Amino acid sequence: MKSLTVKATATLLATVIGTGAAWSAESLQDVMKRRGLSQQDIMAAAKTYVPTGKRDEFLAFSSGGQSGQILVYGIPSMRILKYIGVFTPEPWQGYGYDEESKAVLKGGWIDGKEITWGDTHHPAISETQGQYDGQFLFINDKANPRLAVVDLRDFETKQIVVNPIYKSEHGGAFVTPDTEYVIEAAQYAAPLENKKFYPLEEFNEKYRGGVTYWKFDRQAGRIDPSKSFSLELPPYSQDLSDAGKGPSDGWSFTNSFCSERYVGGIEKGRPPYEAGCSAKDTDYLHVINWKKAAELVAQGKAKKINGHDVLMMDTAVKEGVLFLIPEPKSPHGVDVTPDGQFIIVSGKLDTHVSVYSFDKIQAAIKAGKFESKDPYGIPVIGMKETLHTQVQLGLGPLHTQFDAKKCVAYTSLYVDSQVAKWDFCEGKVLDKISVHYNIGHLMTMEGDSVDPKGRYLVALNKLSIDRFNPVGPLHPQNHQLIDIANDKMQLLYDMPLPLGEPHYVVAIEAAKLKPGVRYKVGTNSRTDEPHPGKVRAGEERVERDGNKLKVYGTLIRSHITPETIEAEVGDEVTIFLTNLERAQDETHGFTVSTYNVHASIEPGKTVSVKFKADKEGVYPYYCTEFCSALHLEMQGYLLVKPKGWKATTKEIAKAAYTETDYRATLKKVVDTQAVIDSVVGFITSTNYKDFPDVVNMVEDATDQLNKANDAKARHEAAAAKQDWEQANLWAEQVWQYQVKAADIGIRAKTYLEQNGAKKIK
Amino acid sequence: MKSLTVKATATLLATVIGTGAAWSAESLQDVMKRRGLSQQDIMAAAKTYVPTGKRDEFLAFSSGGQSGQILVYGIPSMRILKYIGVFTPEPWQGYGYDEESKAVLKGGWIDGKEITWGDTHHPAISETQGQYDGQFLFINDKANPRLAVVDLRDFETKQIVVNPIYKSEHGGAFVTPDTEYVIEAAQYAAPLENKKFYPLEEFNEKYRGGVTYWKFDRQAGRIDPSKSFSLELPPYSQDLSDAGKGPSDGWSFTNSFCSERYVGGIEKGRPPYEAGCSAKDTDYLHVINWKKAAELVAQGKAKKINGHDVLMMDTAVKEGVLFLIPEPKSPHGVDVTPDGQFIIVSGKLDTHVSVYSFDKIQAAIKAGKFESKDPYGIPVIGMKETLHTQVQLGLGPLHTQFDAKKCVAYTSLYVDSQVAKWDFCEGKVLDKISVHYNIGHLMTMEGDSVDPKGRYLVALNKLSIDRFNPVGPLHPQNHQLIDIANDKMQLLYDMPLPLGEPHYVVAIEAAKLKPGVRYKVGTNSRTDEPHPGKVRAGEERVERDGNKLKVYGTLIRSHITPETIEAEVGDEVTIFLTNLERAQDETHGFTVSTYNVHASIEPGKTVSVKFKADKEGVYPYYCTEFCSALHLEMQGYLLVKPKGWKATTKEIAKAAYTETDYRATLKKVVDTQAVIDSVVGFITSTNYKDFPDVVNMVEDATDQLNKANDAKARHEAAAAKQDWEQANLWAEQVWQYQVKAADIGIRAKTYLEQNGAKKIK
Repeated sequence: MKSLTVKATATLLATVIGTGAAWSAESLQDVMKRRGLSQQDIMAAAKTYVPTGKRDEFLAFSSGGQSGQILVYGIPSMRILKYIGVFTPEPWQGYGYDEESKAVLKGGWIDGKEITWGDTHHPAISETQGQYDGQFLFINDKANPRLAVVDLRDFETKQIVVNPIYKSEHGGAFVTPDTEYVIEAAQYAAPLENKKFYPLEEFNEKYRGGVTYWKFDRQAGRIDPSKSFSLELPPYSQDLSDAGKGPSDGWSFTNSFCSERYVGGIEKGRPPYEAGCSAKDTDYLHVINWKKAAELVAQGKAKKINGHDVLMMDTAVKEGVLFLIPEPKSPHGVDVTPDGQFIIVSGKLDTHVSVYSFDKIQAAIKAGKFESKDPYGIPVIGMKETLHTQVQLGLGPLHTQFDAKKCVAYTSLYVDSQVAKWDFCEGKVLDKISVHYNIGHLMTMEGDSVDPKGRYLVALNKLSIDRFNPVGPLHPQNHQLIDIANDKMQLLYDMPLPLGEPHYVVAIEAAKLKPGVRYKVGTNSRTDEPHPGKVRAGEERVERDGNKLKVYGTLIRSHITPETIEAEVGDEVTIFLTNLERAQDETHGFTVSTYNVHASIEPGKTVSVKFKADKEGVYPYYCTEFCSALHLEMQGYLLVKPKGWKATTKEIAKAAYTETDYRATLKKVVDTQAVIDSVVGFITSTNYKDFPDVVNMVEDATDQLNKANDAKARHEAAAAKQDWEQANLWAEQVWQYQVKAADIGIRAKTYLEQNGAKKIK
Repeated sequence: MKSLTVKATATLLATVIGTGAAWSAESLQDVMKRRGLSQQDIMAAAKTYVPTGKRDEFLAFSSGGQSGQILVYGIPSMRILKYIGVFTPEPWQGYGYDEESKAVLKGGWIDGKEITWGDTHHPAISETQGQYDGQFLFINDKANPRLAVVDLRDFETKQIVVNPIYKSEHGGAFVTPDTEYVIEAAQYAAPLENKKFYPLEEFNEKYRGGVTYWKFDRQAGRIDPSKSFSLELPPYSQDLSDAGKGPSDGWSFTNSFCSERYVGGIEKGRPPYEAGCSAKDTDYLHVINWKKAAELVAQGKAKKINGHDVLMMDTAVKEGVLFLIPEPKSPHGVDVTPDGQFIIVSGKLDTHVSVYSFDKIQAAIKAGKFESKDPYGIPVIGMKETLHTQVQLGLGPLHTQFDAKKCVAYTSLYVDSQVAKWDFCEGKVLDKISVHYNIGHLMTMEGDSVDPKGRYLVALNKLSIDRFNPVGPLHPQNHQLIDIANDKMQLLYDMPLPLGEPHYVVAIEAAKLKPGVRYKVGTNSRTDEPHPGKVRAGEERVERDGNKLKVYGTLIRSHITPETIEAEVGDEVTIFLTNLERAQDETHGFTVSTYNVHASIEPGKTVSVKFKADKEGVYPYYCTEFCSALHLEMQGYLLVKPKGWKATTKEIAKAAYTETDYRATLKKVVDTQAVIDSVVGFITSTNYKDFPDVVNMVEDATDQLNKANDAKARHEAAAAKQDWEQANLWAEQVWQYQVKAADIGIRAKTYLEQNGAKKIK
């Protein structure tokens, strides 16, 4: 630790005195006293606070657990930026409420039945040569064994695939170093054949575990089930996996618990699962040569179960791709070191962390030196001869992540409620820090890649009693941010989790992500293809085919085209909507009263909603997003008429606008143009072209003004015919576009003022 | 602004030097330089950072917009503490996935059809004498006109009611000063009769708006639809409301837009709604004597429409309970001042905010001085004679909230993207601050009650371009926290909103909330009644009635009783589960693989899940909450057998445990007891009884150890019979309870160490 120099101290003093004077009546010291903050608190605040408009260094992707979603938050601010609907419908995003996303969710139906949630556990970011590349995100569903693919260009879920042979799946997703495969292991053993019953008395013979290798097609951005395969494994509850890297690339490691194959029955007087599943001192680490297994499958050596390629244990053993090593009892995490040389396992009921050497494992395999076989004939390699070291860390060690510093690892201690920092090369403890309470996973920046970034660690704590303002019996969880830049770890921030129970989280350097802000006009975002329902401005139309009504509409500030949809009771109505906006964040939403559809339509996107118009009546539809000053007026009516209803000859009442009204509106238009001109004058007097956000705003404002040309032509034509009602209303429409242009212009002006734009003329 | 004294400066210097030395290698100045923080940033960080274990001053309840949920966050930390499922199913909470919450959601079905989301807009906290009392929260659904009641004892949704006469509803919820009624206004006019079609040509005659007064029964904690009523109103799009208070108690105020009664039709060449709905200079403020209206309804003067009491316009006019006043065009908010004397309206297309005097309104009504009648015969009071003042604030004024300081108000300016601070007594602007961008609502602490708390203001901005790390085309919204304690407003914090588009938020002093941490054992939390499906430990059972299978089970760390459920294909299975835990935050979850049910079961709660076991096979069920070190082992199997399946005579395989295994387990039990004794020794050597959280933990640990007694009796009995398998496993179970007790004990020890417990012996 260094001491401050005299000069630094003087500067600092000036700084802080300045703070009190320039800012408000309160000094920093006043605030510290009033809020009960210590000096350490101020340092922690300074290390985590992200000022307005600034960015976080890392983005974290966390499983939402039973919420079936993924959440995205910034580090170090720990502000949640987005929940992504994955297995659970989420109406804000239209996910499960528009037809395009329903098709994605339908990929996750099981045995023809809709599943509307998932138990997400382990997210994984796609990798290139073992480095996070920021292109795709994968996540599993434990309850209904499934895997989902999220595209990080638009943070949308693109695909859900159902595991064809499991009934549960805790240990996914883990990717191989070039994302050739996404690894997913079974958890609770069950018969592999779908909808097949065997009694528990035949557990050892008929129940099975396994590990699935889902083939990822990076070009398509989708998993290819036809090229995916699984390995049959014994009915040990397989748990987490990790792929080898560097020297261990081509291999994967999957641990297990309850290798006792115990069947509980507390209601019948038998000890419960928890007793019987942790009675032995060791479980098994599965060591698998996945590259060779894939070759065997390609050679036709797999068996088809439920139409899926499964490499059976007998074959795997015979071909030498499957081995076991004892590991301390009831392990949770298995984590390969960044250099690919070691595999770290913690037995949660043991106080040690065990570091296996990949070289030693390979030597034993090559030498054919096995200590035994398991009941299924799988060769068991000796634990002692493959261990590099074991380190006593504390009670309940679970998961391990790595630092940018060589040999430095961090392991969560569930029972001790601590994080241990230790050296896996030399096998010694370096530091410990207490967390609140009962940490499950932990995570360092890119900490399971070949190139961890260090700096921050997040502790995923399971209990948050005494941490936050109480919000009823169901508490938020607590992610604690810990500074690992120095020798001693230091707690920086407590982050409550408002929705879901995250199990694992991965964090990537923010600069690696390059998400888009708009779609090419007319895109189906769930398929990345042009949408057949897209239309351009002026092409909006309604088509009827029997009782099928298809509406091809558009959205733009602040109107929906069409503004009336006429249906008959019993019609099947499909409404295609294209958002014609080009401006960033100009999302529109769409719903029809009581018909339970909703779409979120970002700029360029085309979506559709579909429903049966089975209730006679009048149903307003509207834009659900506060998109402009006139957003409440972005409305229309679905008219569901009784069958055979005849139109009246009556006309819609006209307003009695006069030439005076028209002239008054024209004056308003002129006045507003003066405001716009003044704002434009300000903007163009600066170096605004140096600010891409402002250039975008200027384009958007110009778009709005250009739209006014059509309305201007209309009001002039109506005025020529002395139709003052139409003339006044179209002149009003010109003003509407002006208001939008002015709105954007003022935004741009504020941006320039606050971001140091310079006068250039 | 004050300058620092010499003494304060010296202390401050010492403080900050201390920071560098005691904390880490980096000084505060180093951190500021590295992270690019200004002095103002450090002050803002100090004003918002809430250290670990400390609490926020205020809790904010925000609508989630199209997410159909409510979110709860702390102020000033702006950390989101909870999303509450309201109109949208949410599996983490089991909301819509267990039978009890499904019953709540079913209250919101419309015309017999399930609605799975809502467009929530305006939350309201229950009031007593105009003050927030922190008991209940109300929120509306604009898309499918409904209202929900949340109980703030457990933050759960208890009731959803469907508005019987509207097709949309933006302007709810607003409560009267003693929460006698919850006010909800229609938005887009439609026929009031359910499922009745009239063409748009009859808009003026057959389409109607209205305002509904839902009667709230505080004792029951539920709305009583039978005692609720509505007022028929003209087809002006009614918008927000506010209830009078103090001198104006008994009256309510509802504004409107599109009083032009314009019908758009851009697809047919007619100007769109946005043009026609904002063509006039004024709309109408509805002034309603709700107390008298309620009396009229009690006297039988209402008409039943769809079974609901509606006071028709004719009656309302005749009885003198309904008046109109012109208000500047296209208003958004109507806000009654804390003293109840003024009603503030902003026309969003006008640059002024208008302050109406309640006294002047009453004087005009008493004098019978009306300037005209509207087309429906409603008396129109003159605008000028009721105005107290008008103040020019800027472009796009929307909503107003109040300060603790007398006469001080804050108004959002949508187009200018600013908040204006102004004096409504003297009619002058005091300060302005820019926000990012396009603010909708704004909110001060208890700022719409009779007793605002000042200090903080939240700006609910609609666009967040250039604010946060990009997360794709769909951006988070941005709630900005602003310090209003001083003359000049100062921006403190940018908070991204990760899910939903909040429209309005209310904040209450955190100390006013007293949520519970557990339920009385066996409670149905959705009805607050004892659950008929509850059982105590040892009472678990399975009942069959034809093809109906009812399982009465329990949950406790770390096992589910029963651990096997045997069903036949086609059975209707109901599983009742009671969480027997008493410890805070010891929630368990429950799901059955692929049957799409999920429950979150907090301590004491009883819930049920129900499904048809229509697929033969083996389906694991498990606890979905990471509840203890052995949570993965908290599992069981649902066996769905083919019809007529005959059991084999085979038995479940036994493990070959020996007396040596048993003795080894006993030794482990003795060793673990030594650890526990040492922890207990530490705890009891301190003043731990002064820490309620620790007292609770000690109780919980004692509970766990007491449970071991039964397992101890069993292993001793088995050992006496030389049944070493049973003896060893039950001894293992004793150890399981010990591990849990040790876990809690270590948590308590950490708490004492970190919270300044004193040695007392």
